[in-house]
Amino acid sequence: MTQAAATFARPQLADCIPDLVAFARGEKKATLYIRNGTLVNVVSGEILPHTSVAVVGTRIAYVGPDAPEMIGETTQVIDAEGKYIAPGLLDGHCHIESSMLSVTQFANAVLPLGTTGGFFDAHEISNVLGLPGLRIMLDEARQTPMAAYMQVASCVPSTNSMFETSGAEFGPAEVAEALTWGPDMIALGEVMNFPGVVYGDPKMIGEIQATLRAGRVVDGHYTWPVGDPRLAAYAAAGVSGDHECVTAEDVAARVRLGMYAKMRRGSAWHDVAATIKAHTEQGLDSRRMLLVSDDRICDSLKEEGHMNFIVRHAISQGVKPVTAFQMATINTAERFGVARDVGSVTPGTIADIILLDGNLADVNVVMTIARGDVVAKNGKMTIDLAPFPYPDYAVNSVKIAKTLAPSDFEIKTPIQSGTIKTRVAEVRENHVETEETFIDVAVREGKLQVTPESTLCKMALFERHGKTGGSAIGIVGNVGFHQPAAIAMTVAHDSHNLLVIGNDDVLMAKAANSVIEMQGGIAVAAQDSDLVKLPLRLAGLMSTEPYETVVNQSQEISQALVKAGCTMNYAFMTLSLLALVVIPTLHISDTGLIRISDAGFEKVSLFVDEA
Amino acid sequence: MTQAAATFARPQLADCIPDLVAFARGEKKATLYIRNGTLVNVVSGEILPHTSVAVVGTRIAYVGPDAPEMIGETTQVIDAEGKYIAPGLLDGHCHIESSMLSVTQFANAVLPLGTTGGFFDAHEISNVLGLPGLRIMLDEARQTPMAAYMQVASCVPSTNSMFETSGAEFGPAEVAEALTWGPDMIALGEVMNFPGVVYGDPKMIGEIQATLRAGRVVDGHYTWPVGDPRLAAYAAAGVSGDHECVTAEDVAARVRLGMYAKMRRGSAWHDVAATIKAHTEQGLDSRRMLLVSDDRICDSLKEEGHMNFIVRHAISQGVKPVTAFQMATINTAERFGVARDVGSVTPGTIADIILLDGNLADVNVVMTIARGDVVAKNGKMTIDLAPFPYPDYAVNSVKIAKTLAPSDFEIKTPIQSGTIKTRVAEVRENHVETEETFIDVAVREGKLQVTPESTLCKMALFERHGKTGGSAIGIVGNVGFHQPAAIAMTVAHDSHNLLVIGNDDVLMAKAANSVIEMQGGIAVAAQDSDLVKLPLRLAGLMSTEPYETVVNQSQEISQALVKAGCTMNYAFMTLSLLALVVIPTLHISDTGLIRISDAGFEKVSLFVDEA
Repeated sequence: MTQAAATFARPQLADCIPDLVAFARGEKKATLYIRNGTLVNVVSGEILPHTSVAVVGTRIAYVGPDAPEMIGETTQVIDAEGKYIAPGLLDGHCHIESSMLSVTQFANAVLPLGTTGGFFDAHEISNVLGLPGLRIMLDEARQTPMAAYMQVASCVPSTNSMFETSGAEFGPAEVAEALTWGPDMIALGEVMNFPGVVYGDPKMIGEIQATLRAGRVVDGHYTWPVGDPRLAAYAAAGVSGDHECVTAEDVAARVRLGMYAKMRRGSAWHDVAATIKAHTEQGLDSRRMLLVSDDRICDSLKEEGHMNFIVRHAISQGVKPVTAFQMATINTAERFGVARDVGSVTPGTIADIILLDGNLADVNVVMTIARGDVVAKNGKMTIDLAPFPYPDYAVNSVKIAKTLAPSDFEIKTPIQSGTIKTRVAEVRENHVETEETFIDVAVREGKLQVTPESTLCKMALFERHGKTGGSAIGIVGNVGFHQPAAIAMTVAHDSHNLLVIGNDDVLMAKAANSVIEMQGGIAVAAQDSDLVKLPLRLAGLMSTEPYETVVNQSQEISQALVKAGCTMNYAFMTLSLLALVVIPTLHISDTGLIRISDAGFEKVSLFVDEA
Repeated sequence: MTQAAATFARPQLADCIPDLVAFARGEKKATLYIRNGTLVNVVSGEILPHTSVAVVGTRIAYVGPDAPEMIGETTQVIDAEGKYIAPGLLDGHCHIESSMLSVTQFANAVLPLGTTGGFFDAHEISNVLGLPGLRIMLDEARQTPMAAYMQVASCVPSTNSMFETSGAEFGPAEVAEALTWGPDMIALGEVMNFPGVVYGDPKMIGEIQATLRAGRVVDGHYTWPVGDPRLAAYAAAGVSGDHECVTAEDVAARVRLGMYAKMRRGSAWHDVAATIKAHTEQGLDSRRMLLVSDDRICDSLKEEGHMNFIVRHAISQGVKPVTAFQMATINTAERFGVARDVGSVTPGTIADIILLDGNLADVNVVMTIARGDVVAKNGKMTIDLAPFPYPDYAVNSVKIAKTLAPSDFEIKTPIQSGTIKTRVAEVRENHVETEETFIDVAVREGKLQVTPESTLCKMALFERHGKTGGSAIGIVGNVGFHQPAAIAMTVAHDSHNLLVIGNDDVLMAKAANSVIEMQGGIAVAAQDSDLVKLPLRLAGLMSTEPYETVVNQSQEISQALVKAGCTMNYAFMTLSLLALVVIPTLHISDTGLIRISDAGFEKVSLFVDEA
């Protein structure tokens, strides 16, 4: 444990009441006073002009007509000049690791965009470093002004050691322990082992029970089609939120069963346009609908935005603006039981406030106030966040001792020549799932021939937690490389072993060795090009560099991929899911190829015997 | 403490999950199965035909299309035949004592009407018996099938010993203790001392802090007009719900500040028709609007109904039926943080379900299921509730040793004859507040002449908790007695001393002595009539008799009042508030006449010196 003494840096309301009533008596003046804005009131669902807000310390003391008597000599007065005043935006489901930024740099990225808080599932670092990794995220978050609530990941590993090797394992005891760390340990993270819940896996049931007994909520991840009783069983077992909705019917089914349906707009998974129709077309009550990012790479934080972009996008799909704001503020806060503290601009809540200019539908954030302080203006941070001191083990987590050779990427076949029917995982742009196909692939000298001409790539996975030293290899389609190329990365959901994808054994070895040498990150190797590298030193997942640096490096990776022929939107993110065995349909782990079906998980062979 | 070992009789979800997943696996069959109803889905806001519900033990395991495979040999199957299936109704603010029924008899009264739970503020018994009284209510509630959540009263007494003498005093320590009794100790009851909150009374602030630190919510009671910063101060101090809304603007002001606005339809306070316009006319989001009863005497439970009546009434005022149901189910559950357990028919919640026949707008409840069992059909209970064993102190609480004489009701004047300007509390039908007027009253032989001809009555109050033995006397207008008559009662909010109202000293003494002799209750004495009595043995507030008996006795009291000329709607309830000093404007306590003004509480004299 690092920094075990750190506590949630947002005081409880009970402790603020003396100051708030001293203010009511007139004995204290506001520390911050916002005059004459147009309030986006997410509780009443109204837009209320001529509204002023007084803040005392960290909390809102007053909302109403201008009350200049609340201003004292030291009060910071902001004249909103009619601009919109709205609650800071909340991300109802987000993996900070997907941004490849540290928590501190994530805060630097999203605070100017109006995101003042989120419900973060540090699932990735937990898979690599276990509870100490989660604790690092929590402690680093506590150094930021964000309302950063952390979830304890439920599926570490996402399946079990039969199917994959992770750096740590969580069970009910780890969940119970993590939930004692503070009020900002808010929930059990997405329970991806939904078959385990529905059919009563004792570990999953135990984790859910530990969470409910701690008075916290359980988030879900359910990908079976709706329409049979299993979703109801999942809900009955205590899972009360889910972001794996890809159709309006998915949303409707969840809301009807009392769950919070989270509508996702990640960098590469674009579900809001379809899912929002549960409200805009089917007319369902929106109170249990949330907008979430799930996974947004730093590039898209820069290019598109964060919750500001997602709220704007929802409005563009026909949602009333105030309703879209509700989906990223009060609905989210209510889902996690913290509406007393965040999610609305109302007396007694913490002063997480944004000002917006122009049309509300444009969600043009021009000022961000977090915990009572102005932290960003006109898209720029106005305060500096201190760097977090990472322990050594957190920045030296790639435990592969040997240098990989091109021969490590050869695939031996049961035949010497001809073609062999091969199981292929086809990636799909902007989708998390793969498609399983079967392709006849050429064989020469007992080895599978995967070349740029074949349009296929190899995918190889090497255990990197210093445990089994195991590896596996398979075939992936639709990557798009039209020249010899390879990408290696330690971001490989969810066990984050070393994943290498390519159509040239030499380049695959080169990229892989580069990532090992960097102690984590991404490297793209292509013929006649320099290696392009993005170091991700923190657990092999996150950069320790500033936001802008990481964006530049990430864009270079993307450009290198495009140059090699891989033109998918945020291709890296889609490729990094090739090891995520809990998503349909076919994936790779260090133990082999894993297929998900209605029956659950199964190991399958690369070659299909047609006999 | 009685029955200290009793616990909340509703198992936590965590403990039910093993059964729920065993059911999902098909290893268990439903204990109760409701086939083919039309679901009032208060989460999605939809009416969904062809819906079936499976219950396993106490909780709902499945909601969806007919699934006959869930039915086993011992399953109780109910064919809904298309009837509406809705969540059991919840009363978001209710004093059971006002029904004059014990908790058990209250359950017998309201379960057939579709109320399966409530948030009960046992404020009255707490004022008489202190924490042991609250514990009796809690333990008795735990014997019923209701989701009976109890609040710990915040204002015991409603002001302080300078203004009134109660049987007990609560402070932060008592609040903290009561909130440790179980998860059904849900909130701090209505904080009537709102000036104390706004201006920082340490006791009130301490109670609120103790409540928030226990993870519970604070209910309010704020009667100052909205439109100045004090309501925001009250909200900032942690008070998050309030039922003292009498206009649509009252509701709007509270919701805009993030509070839950409770719209009341008590027996004698009819606020819904006006307050509901905040939604029906002003269009405010209804998610933080609740329907509540506050105080309903047993007669009106019988004649009108309980939450079924209030929901029907709200619909008649233009609220969409499913929205009105939300206001008495999920909104209420969310307000108190228990939507995981009650307030919707969704998997994992406790099976508190009602079936309704005919038009939904008629709220015609034909079956009530509580905690997974059918408890009422066609307006009648189908199970017997065991009587609760009250300790002796709870049924012997009227500590007035002496017999009162007619002379105890004389009012001496500073003049010997003529008229004297007298301060009068005018009661108003269907309103909780009194009006203060000044009337010239005749004086003869140094005594105020209050006779049937004067249209005024005396009101006398005698301390009955065995503490000070104090008493006071004042004048009340608009009671309506047109013949010599008197009513005496130990229901006299909130300290529940002995209140006697009448225009004849002999009859006042007669009624008062009868109540003392009964050890609590109500008695009406009129010329040429027998005394009419309603014994309220439990704390002088509640009957220990069956519901029907109490209704009959209460109706006899009403008839006796009408016969004497007091024709106000539920006159007894309005009269019983004449000692409630926290309500505007003029009231009586054992310490004298108390007036509430913008400045707070003050003692005032009966006679006004015009010099």
